[in-house]
This record gives sequence, structure tokens and C-alpha cells, in this order.
Amino acid sequence: MVNYTVTFQPVNRSIKVEAGSTLLEAAHQAGIHINSSCGGTGVCGKCRIKVESGTTTGGRSEKLTEEDYLNGIRLACSTLVKSDVTLRLIDETGLLDGGLSVDVPRRHRAMLHYFDIEELRRQGIFIPPVEKMFLELPRPRADDNMADAGRIVLGLKNQYDERRLVISLAVMRKIRRVLREHDFKVTVTLARPVHRHGKTHVVNIQSGNWVERNFGLAIDIGTTTVWGRLIDLHSGRILAAAGDYNGQLSYGEDVISRIIQAEKPRGLKLMQELVAATINKVIARMLAESEIGREEIDSVTLAGNTTMTHLFLRLEPDNIRRAPYVPVSTFFPPIRATDLGLHLPEHAIALLYPSISSYVGGDIVAGVMGSGMYRTDKLTLFVDIGTNAEIVIGSREWLVCAACSAGPAFEGGGITHGMRAAAGAISDCSLHPRSYEPMLTTIDNKPPVGICGSGLLIIVAALFERGLLDQRGKFVRDREIARIRQGKSGYEFVLVNRDEAGTNHDIVINEVDIQNFIRAKAAIFAGVKTLIEEVGLQVSDIEQIILAGAFGSYIDLDSAMTVGLLPEVNLDKILYVGNGSLMGAGMSELSNHIRLDVVEVVQRMTSFELSEVNNFKDQYVASLFLPHTDWTIFPEAKKRITS
Amino acid sequence: MVNYTVTFQPVNRSIKVEAGSTLLEAAHQAGIHINSSCGGTGVCGKCRIKVESGTTTGGRSEKLTEEDYLNGIRLACSTLVKSDVTLRLIDETGLLDGGLSVDVPRRHRAMLHYFDIEELRRQGIFIPPVEKMFLELPRPRADDNMADAGRIVLGLKNQYDERRLVISLAVMRKIRRVLREHDFKVTVTLARPVHRHGKTHVVNIQSGNWVERNFGLAIDIGTTTVWGRLIDLHSGRILAAAGDYNGQLSYGEDVISRIIQAEKPRGLKLMQELVAATINKVIARMLAESEIGREEIDSVTLAGNTTMTHLFLRLEPDNIRRAPYVPVSTFFPPIRATDLGLHLPEHAIALLYPSISSYVGGDIVAGVMGSGMYRTDKLTLFVDIGTNAEIVIGSREWLVCAACSAGPAFEGGGITHGMRAAAGAISDCSLHPRSYEPMLTTIDNKPPVGICGSGLLIIVAALFERGLLDQRGKFVRDREIARIRQGKSGYEFVLVNRDEAGTNHDIVINEVDIQNFIRAKAAIFAGVKTLIEEVGLQVSDIEQIILAGAFGSYIDLDSAMTVGLLPEVNLDKILYVGNGSLMGAGMSELSNHIRLDVVEVVQRMTSFELSEVNNFKDQYVASLFLPHTDWTIFPEAKKRITS
Repeated sequence: MVNYTVTFQPVNRSIKVEAGSTLLEAAHQAGIHINSSCGGTGVCGKCRIKVESGTTTGGRSEKLTEEDYLNGIRLACSTLVKSDVTLRLIDETGLLDGGLSVDVPRRHRAMLHYFDIEELRRQGIFIPPVEKMFLELPRPRADDNMADAGRIVLGLKNQYDERRLVISLAVMRKIRRVLREHDFKVTVTLARPVHRHGKTHVVNIQSGNWVERNFGLAIDIGTTTVWGRLIDLHSGRILAAAGDYNGQLSYGEDVISRIIQAEKPRGLKLMQELVAATINKVIARMLAESEIGREEIDSVTLAGNTTMTHLFLRLEPDNIRRAPYVPVSTFFPPIRATDLGLHLPEHAIALLYPSISSYVGGDIVAGVMGSGMYRTDKLTLFVDIGTNAEIVIGSREWLVCAACSAGPAFEGGGITHGMRAAAGAISDCSLHPRSYEPMLTTIDNKPPVGICGSGLLIIVAALFERGLLDQRGKFVRDREIARIRQGKSGYEFVLVNRDEAGTNHDIVINEVDIQNFIRAKAAIFAGVKTLIEEVGLQVSDIEQIILAGAFGSYIDLDSAMTVGLLPEVNLDKILYVGNGSLMGAGMSELSNHIRLDVVEVVQRMTSFELSEVNNFKDQYVASLFLPHTDWTIFPEAKKRITS
Repeated sequence: MVNYTVTFQPVNRSIKVEAGSTLLEAAHQAGIHINSSCGGTGVCGKCRIKVESGTTTGGRSEKLTEEDYLNGIRLACSTLVKSDVTLRLIDETGLLDGGLSVDVPRRHRAMLHYFDIEELRRQGIFIPPVEKMFLELPRPRADDNMADAGRIVLGLKNQYDERRLVISLAVMRKIRRVLREHDFKVTVTLARPVHRHGKTHVVNIQSGNWVERNFGLAIDIGTTTVWGRLIDLHSGRILAAAGDYNGQLSYGEDVISRIIQAEKPRGLKLMQELVAATINKVIARMLAESEIGREEIDSVTLAGNTTMTHLFLRLEPDNIRRAPYVPVSTFFPPIRATDLGLHLPEHAIALLYPSISSYVGGDIVAGVMGSGMYRTDKLTLFVDIGTNAEIVIGSREWLVCAACSAGPAFEGGGITHGMRAAAGAISDCSLHPRSYEPMLTTIDNKPPVGICGSGLLIIVAALFERGLLDQRGKFVRDREIARIRQGKSGYEFVLVNRDEAGTNHDIVINEVDIQNFIRAKAAIFAGVKTLIEEVGLQVSDIEQIILAGAFGSYIDLDSAMTVGLLPEVNLDKILYVGNGSLMGAGMSELSNHIRLDVVEVVQRMTSFELSEVNNFKDQYVASLFLPHTDWTIFPEAKKRITS
């Protein structure tokens, strides 16, 4: 990815951006305000700037005259950076008094924490749970007529110091022929035990040398989407990735509807078959992409939430949705992949990530394992934000976890003009320090049609920081603000006027929306605070935050701390692991250490039912403020607000 | 069984016999000679005795006058003992000179070593590998909403101190319903690991208390016959036993013909199906007999020779019959019984006894385990005599073993008038010390038609002891003996004249027969001597002998030592374990210790290919004498012969 420097004048601030970024995006990153109400589509014509040097494309609009264009005037929202660029802000409204007033918060997102095979190598734990080994065995002689199976076991001991081996019946049945096909030169596939002191299983035998053809799969069984990775277990490289909508989707979007379906006659079997079919589809796509044969897949690790795991294993999920929320099981034995309906070789073993409880599932455990949280010394908060937010707090010493019912606000649900993070969703917004004119960006730079979760967070934080909202989330009523008005559901802030919107009404955020948002963030923060206090510590003791899940990558960290969603830590101590479930499943395919560790990690992971913790209700009520009733928990936010 | 005392006059010797024994059998046991050539059928009329007191039945014959009968004269061969009896030998031939001349060797057979559950209890190893446990679990509550599976694991830990548990997927799939059927009162079936540090598997769950309904099967897969026992794993009792001819029999009597069949297209599959069908038949018979439901069988242990085990598991046996005699495997993982075609519940696990080599199979290992040989301090010789005799020597410290090709002599094969141990086979024979007239018994007291293996042993020993055979097995040629004559195959001894036989010819034993017998016994003894000397010891160091196999119970021990088949040890140090394979399989069903120990026992059991040991050929040649070229190995036999 090429980066270019964009320099803003007269404030003389520079920032590096990716080639092809718009100048409006560059301004957002630089923390410089440029009015823009239409989401960067050139409709409002407010984001005029002058390009003084460098190459750009686009930026034309019917709002600009030909003369303007020749003079270098462009609309920032549609001007793409093609080299280092210097531009000049246009002081049309006389706001550039000394440059200070253009300052808006810069955006900080969590650092992406990559799936890192080199890290595994350095730690000496790149030991795929399924390995192939090449054996050159001596031919049997009169004075050495050990059984074929014994000869392999002895060869593995002598050549690779492998011990405690079991040979499966299926392998035994072909061992005689395969050994003699290529003069006792064979490749054996070893599957390592998933518990300490367990036995290593010889699961396949091939004549000749095939050690470099050893492949595994990592699958994240999401409620909405199934994601897969095809991994070269010899090199550690990811060879292919694919995803597809979970075939169960037509029976409901959330886990509860799936459980209800599964309770119907033959429903459980149907749910199992649907998700297995989706997984098979994802696998087929990856195999086609990488040109690897199905029979070369030796192993698969899957992770999903507790309901998804139950449905895939055909375990009755009924009690997951009924108090006291008892799943059938939270740990699962290794299972022949074919027994689960996967189109994989007979010898391929499927391993399912264990869950913690009905609402802290294998996806979260996989995230904890994959992110390395369970091995860190730093007191860490792991959080996967969605309708249900799962929280894990701890370090190598101990771990506690809980699920919080945040509601759908972060997915744009329950918000007047909320929407999913799709084209036209307002995803970023700054307010001019004095005019409160918004500077909006939308997803795909389409005309704004609504507010997605990450946009909502930023908007609430901006309104609060600019003093337009009080701590209870109510709009100031003592000042006349152009964009604040009385609406159908009480006071509201107009983000986009109908004529600039991609829809036939104004796009607003009202006090009811803000209350919904506050309840969502309060549920999560109260969960964090309750958990940490249950173990006798304080929120301020948290040293590191790991974000997982799709939403995590879009969270503006300052906004999250301003509104009291996340506790305050240094921004460089916040990591984003993306699809933690998929990452953890992949790590398990590459490191048997992780598979061994997970058993112990799960055992020492204490789960709390927040509704059963006395303190939780009080914590929740205290969190129904921006950022919290107790300002001392958010000292940095306090500084920002009061400045 | 009632015992009566039979007293012989004038020699005043008493012996206890079972009610219903014949007086001829009593005489055999007392070591008293009574002429009898017709096998106890009343034809020859030579075995006249006089009953002086006590109740008998039978003993009439056309050879006796009515007057004789009224005077108490009977034929001993057909007179049955019904109370304590005193009888008088009739000195028709003037042989009763002082009583000494009636003495013939008494018969000593090996003490039967029973399948002994009490012994297991005393040693504290009555721990069936599959156990049922009753759990009364607390109902889930809001503050105790552990998963169903976890609740069971915790219950097992709290109530029974069970740890390291794995719950199978099949159990998980029904756990939710079963737990709630009877208010969280359930019975779980635990299958213990077959290796140390292994996990205990929860293989079944039932609502309510079923701990006393726990049954296992022990199966001996014999080349000829499949034997089974149904065992109550709760009480340790044997509830039923059954046997049936191995369905493979129609494809050949010995393992080599079975292997040849298995090498044909689809032959291996056929052999597998045939033996599985036989096992299923045996199981069905036992279930019917005991009125136990098929679904209540939780476990099955099987033992067989290496070929039988290969065929049952559908492993290619091809190299078992080809030098250097390499089996596919000598150890076998636990296998779902249904995967082997057995009509048993899905959760029943089949365990196969490991083998040592192509010709020392799981049946022998089972015998070593079942007899307790592997735990004894005494240097023990274990021997299973058949066409192939398997030998194991050692104690708790070490074990060595080998297979000897004895040939079919012990089964009556290759002997002019040899036959299987069926009705009419001469099974015992004494020779009068001076007249050399025989005293014969046949199986089922039928007219003699041939000589079975145990009879052959006794006949050769008697001929040798009476000085009619020299050490090379040649008849004396320097004396005129009425029953020795020149026959078609050289010199022969006439055991039964045609008119007293159940066949249309004289029944004889000739020098060729005796050579065949000597080669058979020499193969075994040379094997024993080679093995013991390979470990630096002497035959005289052997302290105990364990006999296994059908033949073992019929061996007259003195005869066996006289001819040099078995080394000399005190008779009370010779045990007979019957079907050692079935016994060992049964013990495994009752003691997981044995299942754990067997892995180590097999590992320290050193197998010798006798043909590869330099010394063996010389040992064999030196053993081709009665009892051996080296008399010092048989000091007691020497005393008997020279007296």
C-alpha cells in the first residue's frame, strides 16, 4: 500500500494517508474540520478546499464553477489523493481564527493484531496438531520380523523420538500394502493428543514422501456468516479464505430463533445439516481456490458461539434460551469430521473449541487463545461487542468472563435512523467547535441514509464533547443551536437535511436514540466494572484491551472512552484481533500447545451470570451516564470535556 | 459331586472316586492293573473282579455265567460305583504275587486353576473396565447453571472421585433429556482407559438406577471353535457360556488355509463376516440363556491367535504364512463393537488381546494374563499344546516365548490309528508289569477305534517304562513279546485285537507312529530348553508349569515327564487353566488392572523365532530320544525306568 503525505494549510498540519483516500478522509484523520453534510457525495458542496500542489483526481461538482476548478478549488469529499498533496482550507465562514478552531478529534482505531506464524515459531510452539513424517524403514528379515505396525512405531521412535502412539484400525487395514508399495518408505500422519499424557494417533499412511502436503482448516461458525481458512500446516501459511452466509439464516437472524427452530420436530437435524452444508460450501471454495485435494485435509478446528456449536454437533440447545441457561456441554471430544457431515477424509478429526457457558462461547475462547491473552502478564480486557457483548478479564494467572445483553444499538438497531454498516451509513462525524456544523463520512461515500453503530458512537461522543449533551444524554435546552430542534420523540439533532440525504427525510439523532445507546454502553461497562470488582480490582488496573468482532475495527477509541464504553487505557494498549474466533481456530491448527492449553484455560475461566451478581444492577444504573456517574474513572475524558 | 471310596483287595488299597465311575476307572486311578483290551465295553471279558461289599450297578456280560454274577463277579469295565465299595482282584493268571505286580502308574493330571473372582477381590483389582455409577445430581439453579455434561463430570468427581473424564458425542446427544426424565438421577456407564494416564470415557447414560445391570462378554476366537462367556460385571459371576464352530471352518481347518482364502478377492471380507456371524450366534445364545437384553452389554474382550485376530479385524494376514512371518499388527486399539459387525449396542467397546508374533497370539497372551503367570515370582513354563505349541517362560520379571511346530501327533494326526479325542479313542492304557497285557479305557467307554493324543502319550510312556521301547523309540528285538510283531511299517505293538475292537482291524502302534510322536514332543521340549538357555538358565530352574488348551487337561503328567515332553517339576506345581484364552478375556472384563498390565507384559515379552536360534537344531536332535539324550535332565524318570 502506497502512502502519501497530505499537508493542510494554513494550519500547516501533515498526515500520511493511503493512495486513493479522499481529502475529506485525510482531514478526518488529521483532526481537521471541514463542513460536509452529504457524506462525501458532492451534493452539499460545503467541503470546498484549494489544492495548491500535488496530483489529485475527482473533486468536480455542479456546486463548483469552471473558474473555481481551474483555480484548484475542489470538493474534499470526492478528491482522491494520487501523490503528496498540499491543500488550503477556505475560510468562507471566517472560522479559521488562528487555525485552532478547525481542530476536531483525530480518529484512533485499535492496532490490528495479526495471525502470526513467526511468533509461534519464535516461541517454539509451531507444532501442528497434525504432522506428517517420512519414514525409511528397514525391510523385514528373518531376525527382524516385527509386525508392520510395530515397525512403524519403532521407526517413529528412532527417527523422530515419537512415543505413546496408537495406530487406528483404518490405518492398520492398509499398512501392509502401503509399506511394500515403495520399499518401506512411507509418510505417516500423526494426530497429537488434545490432553496432556494422551496418545498420539497415527491416522494415515501413504507410500513415498508427502510431508509437505499437510493441510488443515480453521472454521468460524458465525450466527450470520461462516468463515474459513485453509492452512498449510507444513509452512504455516494461509492458502485460502472464504466465507458464506450460514444456511440457517432463513430460520432467523439470532440464536434464539435458531433454538426455537431446533426444538421443532426434526428441526435440530435440519439446523445441523444446514450449517454443515454451509461449511462444506466454504471448504469447497477454498479447495478450488488453492487447488488442493479434499483428501489432503488432515484436520479441522471449528469455533462458534455456544448455540452454533450445539447445532453443529446436534446437541439439544433447548435450555440455552431458558433460565437458568444450561447448555448440554461446554467441552467436546475430538470427532471424526465425516460423522458431522463434513466432506473430508475419514481420518480427518474435527476439534470444536470449548465454550464457557450458554452465552460465552467457543468463539470467545478461541479469541482469548488466538490473541494470546491467556499468556500475557498484563491485566487485559477482551471484549467482543455485538447484540451480546462478551467480556473476558484477566491474564495468565486467572480469567473471568460474562456476557452482557447490550441490545442491538451497536448494530444500528433500536435507533430511529439506525442501520447496519452498509453503503450510505454515517460512519464518522465531527462537529465544528463553534458552529456545530457536521463533517460527515459515509460508508462507500454514498449519500447518507442512516447511522451505523460506529457512527452512532462517534456522534454521541461528539455531541457530548461539544457540550450539546449533558451527562444524562439530554440535549442542552438553554442555548439556541441551529441543528437542535424538538422532534416527534423529543429533542433531536439534525445530522443531514433531507435535500442532502440519500433518503426522503432528515437524518436525526434524538434523545430516545441516545438513551438506547447509553443503555447499551452501560450494560457493557457495568459488566466490565462488576467483573473486575468481583476479583477485588479496579477498572483503572486494566492495562490492555483486546477488541474482537466486526464492530471492533470501527470503534473510534477516544469516542469509546468519552462516552464510557471502554475504560481508559493508553491507545497503544488497545489491540484489534478481527475475527477472534477464526484466528483462534487457525492458531489451534498450527500449535498443539494451544489445543493443550485451552483445556486448562477454560477450566480456570470463571464465568459470572451478571444478573446473579448483587452489585451489577447498581453498576448498571451508575453507568447510565456519559461517561459515568463517577468522573474519576474517566480522568482523560474529563480533561477533554472540560477543555 | 459325591465321592465314594473303592477298596481293592487283596492289596488293601483305597481310592476315592466320583459316584458313577467304573471300577476300571477306579483301578486306573489307584494304579492297579486289571487286564482289559476292549476299552471297557464288556467284549473281551478280561476285567473280572469280585464285589465283596457295597452297591454297584452293571457289570453283567455274556462272558459271565449267572453263577458268577450271583457270586459278585463283575466286569470292572462296566460296573458303576454307587456307594463305598470293596472288591477283590481275581488272580486268574497267578500274577498277584504279593500284590506288587498289580502296580501300574497312577494317573496325575494338572490341577485345574479356576477363573477366580474372589482372588481378584482379595487383591483389590476387581475393577471392571466398564462400570456403572448412580448419580443424584442437584437441579440447575440460577447460581449453579453449569452445563449438563459438566454437572455429570462434577458429580462423578464429588461422589466417586472420578477424574479425567471424556463424554462421548453420542452420550451428549441424549444427556439433556435423560437427566430430566428422573429428576437428575441417572446411571452413567464409565469405560476405563486401556493405558495409564488415559481418560475414562462416559459411554452411556440412563435415567434412574441401573448399576446392577452391567454385563460384559469374553470371547475366545478359536480356529475351530468360538467360545463365549457372559459375565455379570457387577457381581463378577459368569451367567452363561456357549460355543460354536467357527464359521470359517468350511474354508479349511488350519490357519494357513484360512489365510489362503483371505488372499482371494473378497476373501478377507468373507472371513471377517463368517467369524463375526459365529460370534453373534454365540452371543445370541448366551443372551437367550441368561435373559439379558442385548442393549445391556457394555463391553466385550476377545482373544484369538494372530491369524484369527487379523481375520476378525479385517487385517491382511498374507505375511503371517510367508517368511519372515510378519503380521500387520500385534496390538490393537479399542474398537466400537458395531464397527466389527457385532450385534451389540453402539457404545460397547471391543478390546482385542494383543499378540506377540505371527504364531504366538492373543490367545496365549490372554492365558499368561488370566493364569496370573505374569505376576508370579516362580519361574514358570506356560505351554499350550496343539499342532503349534506355544511356549512362554518367565515370571513377573521377564518373559520369553516361542511357537514350536509340533505337528499334528497330539491331535491324533500322522499316527497310523490316530484319531481325535472322540468316542472310542483309547485315552488311557496301562501294561501289566510282566505279561504286558493292556488295561485300556476309551472315551465314552465305546469299543476302541483308535488312539487319541493323550492316549498316545500314555501308551508310549508305558511301552518305554515297561522296557519294550528303547530310548530311540525302537521296540526291543531281543525278547519274544506276544503283542509285539513285525507289521507293514516295521515293528508294532498290538493294543486291541480286531475281535475286541470297534473297527475291522487290529489297533496297533508302530515305530513310525512313535517316531512321529517323538518328533512332536522333541519340538516342544527343544523349544523349552532353547528358550530357557537363551536367558542363561537351565530346565531344572523351572518351578511351575501351566498347561493350557484342550489337550492340557488330559495329559498324564508322569507320562509327559517319562517321555520328555515336559520338564520335571513337582506334580503339585503343574496347573491347568483350560481355555486360557477365554479365561484371560474374562479376567480382562473384570479387572482393568489386567488390561493395563497387558500392554507392559506384551512389551517385555521377548519372542524368539526358534528356527533363527543357532542352538535350536542341536537341542531338537538331542530331544529325539526318550526322554532325552541327557538323562540328567530327567532324574525322576530315570529312577522309574531303572526300577
